[in-house]
Amino acid sequence: MPAKNLDEIMSFCRRRGFIFQSGEIYGGLQGVYDYGPLGVELKNNLKAAWWRANVYERDDIVGLDSSILSHQKVFAYSGHEATFADNMVDCYDCKHRWRVDHLVDGKCENCGSKNLTEPRPFNMMFKTRIGPVEEGAAFAYLRPETAQGIFVNFKNIVDSTFQKLPFGVAQIGKAFRNEITPRNFIFRVREFEQMEIEYFVKPGEDETCHEDWVKARVAWWLEQGLAPENLKLFTQPQEELAHYAKKTVDILYNFPHGFEELEGIANRTDYDLGSHSKEQATLNIQAKVVPNHDSNTKLNILDVKTNEFVVPFVIEPSAGVDRGVLAILVESYVEETLEDNKKRVVLKLKPHLAPIKVAVIPLARNNSDIVAKAKAIRKQIQTLGVGRISFEDTGNIGKSYRRHDEIGTPLCVTVDFDTIGKDGNAELLNTVTVRERDSMQQKRVHLDQIDNYIRKFF
Amino acid sequence: MPAKNLDEIMSFCRRRGFIFQSGEIYGGLQGVYDYGPLGVELKNNLKAAWWRANVYERDDIVGLDSSILSHQKVFAYSGHEATFADNMVDCYDCKHRWRVDHLVDGKCENCGSKNLTEPRPFNMMFKTRIGPVEEGAAFAYLRPETAQGIFVNFKNIVDSTFQKLPFGVAQIGKAFRNEITPRNFIFRVREFEQMEIEYFVKPGEDETCHEDWVKARVAWWLEQGLAPENLKLFTQPQEELAHYAKKTVDILYNFPHGFEELEGIANRTDYDLGSHSKEQATLNIQAKVVPNHDSNTKLNILDVKTNEFVVPFVIEPSAGVDRGVLAILVESYVEETLEDNKKRVVLKLKPHLAPIKVAVIPLARNNSDIVAKAKAIRKQIQTLGVGRISFEDTGNIGKSYRRHDEIGTPLCVTVDFDTIGKDGNAELLNTVTVRERDSMQQKRVHLDQIDNYIRKFF
Repeated sequence: MPAKNLDEIMSFCRRRGFIFQSGEIYGGLQGVYDYGPLGVELKNNLKAAWWRANVYERDDIVGLDSSILSHQKVFAYSGHEATFADNMVDCYDCKHRWRVDHLVDGKCENCGSKNLTEPRPFNMMFKTRIGPVEEGAAFAYLRPETAQGIFVNFKNIVDSTFQKLPFGVAQIGKAFRNEITPRNFIFRVREFEQMEIEYFVKPGEDETCHEDWVKARVAWWLEQGLAPENLKLFTQPQEELAHYAKKTVDILYNFPHGFEELEGIANRTDYDLGSHSKEQATLNIQAKVVPNHDSNTKLNILDVKTNEFVVPFVIEPSAGVDRGVLAILVESYVEETLEDNKKRVVLKLKPHLAPIKVAVIPLARNNSDIVAKAKAIRKQIQTLGVGRISFEDTGNIGKSYRRHDEIGTPLCVTVDFDTIGKDGNAELLNTVTVRERDSMQQKRVHLDQIDNYIRKFF
Repeated sequence: MPAKNLDEIMSFCRRRGFIFQSGEIYGGLQGVYDYGPLGVELKNNLKAAWWRANVYERDDIVGLDSSILSHQKVFAYSGHEATFADNMVDCYDCKHRWRVDHLVDGKCENCGSKNLTEPRPFNMMFKTRIGPVEEGAAFAYLRPETAQGIFVNFKNIVDSTFQKLPFGVAQIGKAFRNEITPRNFIFRVREFEQMEIEYFVKPGEDETCHEDWVKARVAWWLEQGLAPENLKLFTQPQEELAHYAKKTVDILYNFPHGFEELEGIANRTDYDLGSHSKEQATLNIQAKVVPNHDSNTKLNILDVKTNEFVVPFVIEPSAGVDRGVLAILVESYVEETLEDNKKRVVLKLKPHLAPIKVAVIPLARNNSDIVAKAKAIRKQIQTLGVGRISFEDTGNIGKSYRRHDEIGTPLCVTVDFDTIGKDGNAELLNTVTVRERDSMQQKRVHLDQIDNYIRKFF
């Protein structure tokens, strides 16, 4: 039975060291989370899988890592200063503030009052003063999306890496939104991480390209272990599209709180490159852009086929890392009833996502020969480069297996008296027990074969 | 001849897509940089090498990824609110503001005036308002170091992963300091990345542990390719130590602007865990800490040998990612004069750090058979998982080699007419030329052997 309860997942994440509330010892910082020892490995594995699939395994995408602190003009011309706002209302009775679209029945969620102000826009960007001036106008934004860092570097990237259309730029990084009402654990938070691709195409080729990306991104999420029946596509209706978008398809996941956005794939037209360009009138920009008198660069590219400069259209597959982690946790968290009617919790993660790949367990924690052998085997397996291998001596063997089931470790390797030749079974010398998480099957494997066995498994 | 000129390195970084000024098209955001397509790979490779050495290859360190937005009380009790300040002076004549310790001869660096204000402290932490309140007191800090995220999660980590002393927690992440005078390219910046370990030991074992970490960290930097003669240890004099530190040893690198800090290894005593604890009087804390009435947790741990709770001492190896990238670029950037008196620039990166591991080059860009074969070979090599493999068809073969020398690609694989059997040399069918960056030697390798060749090389 997969977990359908967010509280259960939250408590599991805290107990097992996946995710903690930020600043918990001081009462917590709302809408901000820390990834613990297992959470950071799961998150890093997910990000690495995305980078591998999009940057390494394709030859038309390069990476970028732009800054979080952003020049004010970047988010002026992107349109965020003017439009990146939620409508909010205040409760006259208890003074709480809410996003209008989050209020069911138009009642204050805190006190139930209907005595609310008219909706007012509230810009969601975080600002900070920058430079040595205590007072005054010098400030920077914390980027609310990684995308703009790609657009404003368009010319630098083209000039330094000789790209030809179509090509893409991929980026993973933190972004910040001052959500009025953060909620649903790591689903809607104030600090989060994005995996974004801006894929640049010749105008006219954008629609086909958009369709291809929707397919590619669904296929990738399936490879991360999400079940097809828990994914749904949602084409945003024309009247709800962002001002820059020609078409947006969301990939929704069946979260405990319902089907909600995991990734959005938008056709942003030439709005972004056009908006950040100088001398816009000379560029044949199709989108409606605000005149730009501050940019020092034209963000266009030579189309080598026609020998003409064009401002490309942009297809943007934009995924949330934290939402991905949450979807994968929800999907893989399973409670099973075993033959003896006992229960076990298993995190059925795909092996490439598992925080710990192999746990090496000494059967007797107090036998120094067995412990030394287990430590040596851990070290040897670590050199295979499949990921994190852990030495596990925190409980008896049954407890160790359950613990590693619960955190999704695909394989356990147990070192016992036979392994070190202390049980009279000469033919079992230098063999270990390998136990597989999902099937719980155990095999006896010779140490000569263990490297091959593990390499083959991952 | 290694590069000793920072301007040369900066211009190289921009030209080849390693590092760009942030917000360049709007005049740039001072002290903030973006990593381009090659820079992001180099930086990611450095971070991965650090994580591998410290989290994967040891069994006493776990990872963490805590938030950038930080609860105000974290940096109140850490001591940063009171003391994380630089002394600055203003120039009465031109109004520029400077860090006192950066002014040579006490003259304004802008106008040369000696008409300066008295030094005043300037807190370097960035603040931002958080929550839906436009005015008022709710604000968060952007963390000025990743370390505090580890300390305030100490109990969560111990409880969820059953650590016993000694053990460590490792973290890589962004940190922010509002430097008055950012300078020396990515050496002193306002947004940067840290690789920090907080290693917790029993009081009394701290001094030996500190020495061990200094050795381990120097060894690691040597493995990244820094030359021993360009590294120097500097023990901070007692009177210059931070208020929490018992001893600090800096690893200095021979940057173009002189020997400066690459990493600091501090013995922070029990100051941090003690400062963030409740009921401090019960904890036998040795450091001088401010009374804490806000924390809800005691940050101590059971010493299983004595069955007593202790507040551990902390050894902190804290390295700058950006400074590491800069040191590696400076170290590996070499101009060579070849036999024909021509010059070449080579980036002699260790193979594990190289942004592109192998470039596959079609000898004739207009021969579709050769191009198709080269693309297929690229794809095949990519599956080996050694890193990024690129298809290179932007110039003739000589230019391609030079370009990949300059960006540090260790191997080039060239596909020619022989490879596809179009040159009458039957025995050369399905062979390619493999060229090595540093020696420039070329070998003919059969495609049956290419996987092994490349695996062995990396």
